[in-house]
Amino acid sequence: MKATVMYGAGDVRVEDVADAGLSDPTDALVRITHSCICGSDLWPYKSMEASAEGQRMGHEFVGVVEDVGADVTKVGPGDLVIAPFVWSDGSCDFCREGLHTSCRHGGVWGNEDNGAQAEAVRVPWADGTLVKVDTEPDDALLPSLLTLSDVFATGHHAALSAEVSPGATVAVVGDGAVGLCGVLAAKRLGAERIIILGRHENRTDLAREFGATDVVSERGMEAVERVRELTGGDGAPSVLECVGTPQSFGTAASIARPGGTVGRVGVPQRGKLPEADSTFMRNISVRGGVAPARAYIPELLPDVLEGRVEPGRVFDATIGLDEVPEGYRAMNERETIKAMVRP
Amino acid sequence: MKATVMYGAGDVRVEDVADAGLSDPTDALVRITHSCICGSDLWPYKSMEASAEGQRMGHEFVGVVEDVGADVTKVGPGDLVIAPFVWSDGSCDFCREGLHTSCRHGGVWGNEDNGAQAEAVRVPWADGTLVKVDTEPDDALLPSLLTLSDVFATGHHAALSAEVSPGATVAVVGDGAVGLCGVLAAKRLGAERIIILGRHENRTDLAREFGATDVVSERGMEAVERVRELTGGDGAPSVLECVGTPQSFGTAASIARPGGTVGRVGVPQRGKLPEADSTFMRNISVRGGVAPARAYIPELLPDVLEGRVEPGRVFDATIGLDEVPEGYRAMNERETIKAMVRP
Repeated sequence: MKATVMYGAGDVRVEDVADAGLSDPTDALVRITHSCICGSDLWPYKSMEASAEGQRMGHEFVGVVEDVGADVTKVGPGDLVIAPFVWSDGSCDFCREGLHTSCRHGGVWGNEDNGAQAEAVRVPWADGTLVKVDTEPDDALLPSLLTLSDVFATGHHAALSAEVSPGATVAVVGDGAVGLCGVLAAKRLGAERIIILGRHENRTDLAREFGATDVVSERGMEAVERVRELTGGDGAPSVLECVGTPQSFGTAASIARPGGTVGRVGVPQRGKLPEADSTFMRNISVRGGVAPARAYIPELLPDVLEGRVEPGRVFDATIGLDEVPEGYRAMNERETIKAMVRP
Repeated sequence: MKATVMYGAGDVRVEDVADAGLSDPTDALVRITHSCICGSDLWPYKSMEASAEGQRMGHEFVGVVEDVGADVTKVGPGDLVIAPFVWSDGSCDFCREGLHTSCRHGGVWGNEDNGAQAEAVRVPWADGTLVKVDTEPDDALLPSLLTLSDVFATGHHAALSAEVSPGATVAVVGDGAVGLCGVLAAKRLGAERIIILGRHENRTDLAREFGATDVVSERGMEAVERVRELTGGDGAPSVLECVGTPQSFGTAASIARPGGTVGRVGVPQRGKLPEADSTFMRNISVRGGVAPARAYIPELLPDVLEGRVEPGRVFDATIGLDEVPEGYRAMNERETIKAMVRP
């Protein structure tokens, strides 16, 4: 089968690899119908050291079950399934608490020759990991179903972590696909005022359609000043950090109202969180992290299936598997917000 | 009157200064009966640049009102009062929300020639700031009343920020007076397992009397390993960070269970919070900051007056005003946990 392998920064190849197959009795084999490239894939694309073995890529997918191991009971051949970006057994204490990303048998795609920018994938702990879609959705819904794998679930995690509540004033740092999904998730949770910080007009236009009421295109201290102006001088009680750099985190902390909360989902790029002093004096909470997408899919799925939210609109390009290297380039150069892959 | 002035690192003097007096119609003049030295006073004691003007010291006190301005209605001459370590108007939006440390007219003692390691002090916004003690407490209760100014309120803030709940497993980083009060606050909130990290036996003995069930005297990674052993390998759902150094914060983050919360009240000493990566992957929340003591005094006061908690036991020395420089030295060299000052 064909699969995507990254050999180093800027070096992404689509190659013939051994077919995916069952290994453990709790596995499923899934034929992928929809996958995509993640903003977090761009970090190794910028910085990965060259290696001879390479690294399988892709961790978001929707597909059809082709085969299952002997212990799998909840999904079977022919089922349309959504996979969260971390697999999980569904039965350990962390899974029961809704923190599937800390599952005692969890893992992430890409390791073990198992990536989702490919024709097929082995799914460990299939009963715990996969969510079966019981209806036969219209094709137009598939991109939005795919966002439940990661990007919309992550935006939802940012909004929950930032304690967004009905009527809230919210600021969102970042106009990438996660930031846009953060806007949508905040709107879905009832936020009234949603300020997005971003400088790309096509993205902030979509943010407005997703529910943003204000766009701040300034950067750094000017952005902080502008958000404070828009919020009566105090900042926003809920801030979604959807980038992950020290600068974006500093901005997020600076635009939080005293006593407010930063919900962070941007994968941290450089070790430390800044602003220990200013967050201390103003009692800013910092919550969030890697999103337990599996916990959120059952809640978000009906809204997607019934068309109440359309997170799939973050995909502004659809490519075949052979075009994945070009998809990385286009996303890295910000020509594309997020590319969907149809193997 | 006599007051404490710090002129630089290690240079604390008790001097004759101009008598404290009323300035604004919302002021009170309070004759101080009990004050103390704070762990946070030791940071400038270690590092303050020499200055000719110096800095008035002290921000925790209990005293008797001597005079009030024309607009003060809630306290009057002869009243026994407790002052939180930040003054606040009691009426702005932040005060109404319980975040008096972000009061729109707030300020901290020590500025404006106004410190509490002195014979008397001017109290801005007296109606909002001071809490009147309606009973005539036994002398033995006064040290515990004094802790409501800062140290017990701060321990309570750490425990609330760390989301301690009945039956909880809690770890407390730091065996200073704040850490000890954190143990007491966690116990008061119903924690069942309380692990204190500290290496001073007299302090950890008191921690056990306050409710600690386990003492970890190792440091760094060994301490992390030990706490994990004690918690089934996962760490504690609630961690109180009561020191404020990058190392202590790193320890706190490392011993938090995935999905858990670090309540931080240690005044940050060096700008950044470590562990952005590991807290991200494990969804560790970081909450807390400077404690809104004024918000907590009404809730904590009955427990002190009725003897259900004795936070005043953190004072292991009582000194006169002239002995304050020696008190700083003894606390800095860890001979004394916390020194009470009787002007």
